[in-house]
Amino acid sequence: MNLFCKKVNIKMKNFIRLLTGSGENCADIRYATAISTPDDFIYFEFNDRKCAILSALEIDRAKQNARPGVEVCQDTSFGGHGRMDIISAISGECRCKKFIVPAAFPLALADKMRAAGMEVVTEEKSFFPEREFKSQEEAAAVTASQRAAEAGFARAVEVLKNSDICNGIIFWQNKELTSEILRAEIDCEILHCGMLPTGTICAGGIQGSQPHNAGSGVLKADSPIVMDIFPRSPATGYWGDLTRTVVKGKASDIVKRAYNAVLEAREYAKNLVKTGAYGASIHCAAEAILEKHHFFTGQNDKGQFGFFHGLGHGVGLEIHEAPRLSPKAKTALKGGEIVTVEPGLYYPEWGGIRLEDIMYLTPSGESICLTKAPDFLEID
Amino acid sequence: MNLFCKKVNIKMKNFIRLLTGSGENCADIRYATAISTPDDFIYFEFNDRKCAILSALEIDRAKQNARPGVEVCQDTSFGGHGRMDIISAISGECRCKKFIVPAAFPLALADKMRAAGMEVVTEEKSFFPEREFKSQEEAAAVTASQRAAEAGFARAVEVLKNSDICNGIIFWQNKELTSEILRAEIDCEILHCGMLPTGTICAGGIQGSQPHNAGSGVLKADSPIVMDIFPRSPATGYWGDLTRTVVKGKASDIVKRAYNAVLEAREYAKNLVKTGAYGASIHCAAEAILEKHHFFTGQNDKGQFGFFHGLGHGVGLEIHEAPRLSPKAKTALKGGEIVTVEPGLYYPEWGGIRLEDIMYLTPSGESICLTKAPDFLEID
Repeated sequence: MNLFCKKVNIKMKNFIRLLTGSGENCADIRYATAISTPDDFIYFEFNDRKCAILSALEIDRAKQNARPGVEVCQDTSFGGHGRMDIISAISGECRCKKFIVPAAFPLALADKMRAAGMEVVTEEKSFFPEREFKSQEEAAAVTASQRAAEAGFARAVEVLKNSDICNGIIFWQNKELTSEILRAEIDCEILHCGMLPTGTICAGGIQGSQPHNAGSGVLKADSPIVMDIFPRSPATGYWGDLTRTVVKGKASDIVKRAYNAVLEAREYAKNLVKTGAYGASIHCAAEAILEKHHFFTGQNDKGQFGFFHGLGHGVGLEIHEAPRLSPKAKTALKGGEIVTVEPGLYYPEWGGIRLEDIMYLTPSGESICLTKAPDFLEID
Repeated sequence: MNLFCKKVNIKMKNFIRLLTGSGENCADIRYATAISTPDDFIYFEFNDRKCAILSALEIDRAKQNARPGVEVCQDTSFGGHGRMDIISAISGECRCKKFIVPAAFPLALADKMRAAGMEVVTEEKSFFPEREFKSQEEAAAVTASQRAAEAGFARAVEVLKNSDICNGIIFWQNKELTSEILRAEIDCEILHCGMLPTGTICAGGIQGSQPHNAGSGVLKADSPIVMDIFPRSPATGYWGDLTRTVVKGKASDIVKRAYNAVLEAREYAKNLVKTGAYGASIHCAAEAILEKHHFFTGQNDKGQFGFFHGLGHGVGLEIHEAPRLSPKAKTALKGGEIVTVEPGLYYPEWGGIRLEDIMYLTPSGESICLTKAPDFLEID
């Protein structure tokens, strides 16, 4: 028996697989059950049994929405309200004291289980490795969220087209246009598509040189505005992820050159998203394109500059999930992955450029770009 | 030395207090640092030192935003990128191998720390018990989010006022009004207030009999619509929480009676939010008012009915936090708490009524209602 067989054997036969979390915040429990809740609940698998245990508050809705094959029970018929009571009841019913839990399982609960004589081991890698490989249905769910992101971007472009420039400041509807106003316009469009906006970035000028800066204050003309838009579907839980960078007015030479380098790097890297390709290789290929255009990465007294984040990440029930396209990604793509490709260049002197598309590598090895948003830098 | 002194001593002198989480999803780490990040980072306290350790991607923004007194370090200058490397470096620098972590600390990381010879114990109750007691500044932050919730509700009322009824269906702008459309209107208003909508409930008719049902499909006239609106401030991280129930058209007799009973229960319970009052007593007092009006709680073949959730919960950096106002809440209010008071009645035959205000019990014991939204049932 080799290690792989042994692992499968442990997983399938001798251990109870246990999760605790909310449908909204724990991707694994949502993947297993399709139940979306604001509050935590408990889920376990043992042999062929799959069972979600919820409170009075959630039970009726959970029964309506649960994935076929998942049994839905009320906590009061399963040991009571406390998590330890429920887990003891599970252990008793299954006649098993061995549990496999995810790496992020809450320590205090595990310690209580161990003190009660249960064995608790963590899954070394992901709890549902199959989450990395998306079905056509899952790809359709990501695409639906991506369309909402694109509608949000189109709204931002409309606002910027209808804006005027006065003394280097952008004015919309006779008021200074701020990151906050532009973000609200994007997010409202997303809401009208039936999706949830979740922290849209509209970072102008040097704020754009910090990749996670959400942006605040008045937006300036002739300066790049990074818009990173990642809505989630409340119905399916799947995310979209889109980044575009535009300039209202005229871009400077360095911004134009950086934009073209990032666009070339993105398109080059997208073509490398194929079965058998390594995440690290794709990342490094994009970096090489940026360096070919003399955009280098490093650190000085103003902070970091260049291309200092991973090229991409998986998108599904989490906005950032496996696999990564980064220097540390040492496994090959297998087919089924949905990944972002989002090179960026960031310089504290003038700001940032990031351009992000999503690729779906189908289970049969076809490589499809799920993003339809256009690419352009300047808006008149 | 009594047990309390011993605990304080352990906490202050011999242990490193350790947190890992993202600023957006982990209220404790945000409370400690005021740093808002989408990605996890590490934070520790030892003697008088308070230190947040972040990646390249977050470091510059974290330095700008960190709470005074919190040192901000980059992971590369603190052991490297991996969490275990960083924790080993912390342990080495502090010359201490004992850690206190929160109950939800990730098990796999704790197991690795223990395997490396570190002692890891979980804080039995909350990691920062002081989070339960809000300063005036925190109350102002909750109030700001509450104003956005109220603006969202006002927008919903405006939409319903401007709607028509045709064959028992609500029409707005010549289209059937759905939960989805009404929610988008509420949420857009919240966005324009600079706050984030986070899963607004607009549940009409019998959907409203499930307290966490977000609502979907066409909204009917003469039937209660439960609107539960809980926006979060992206700037401060603090939440608001407001529920109102309205009827477009004419409410039935039973709905009117239920509405009046819930309103009476809420107002009665709000008056009980005082220093020294027990959460359980306040809950039971509200329940007694509902029973006085012959609204009872139970379960039948259609599911649960009556008042089957807790009366209220704390609101702060989490939407649901301590203290609870529920039958299990066995401690007295001390002053400083912000709690919701939200009795509800739910019947699968006709739907639900929930009315929710927020109370601030100031540190000096004054009881202030932070909600300004009006109460009414019918909209013409």
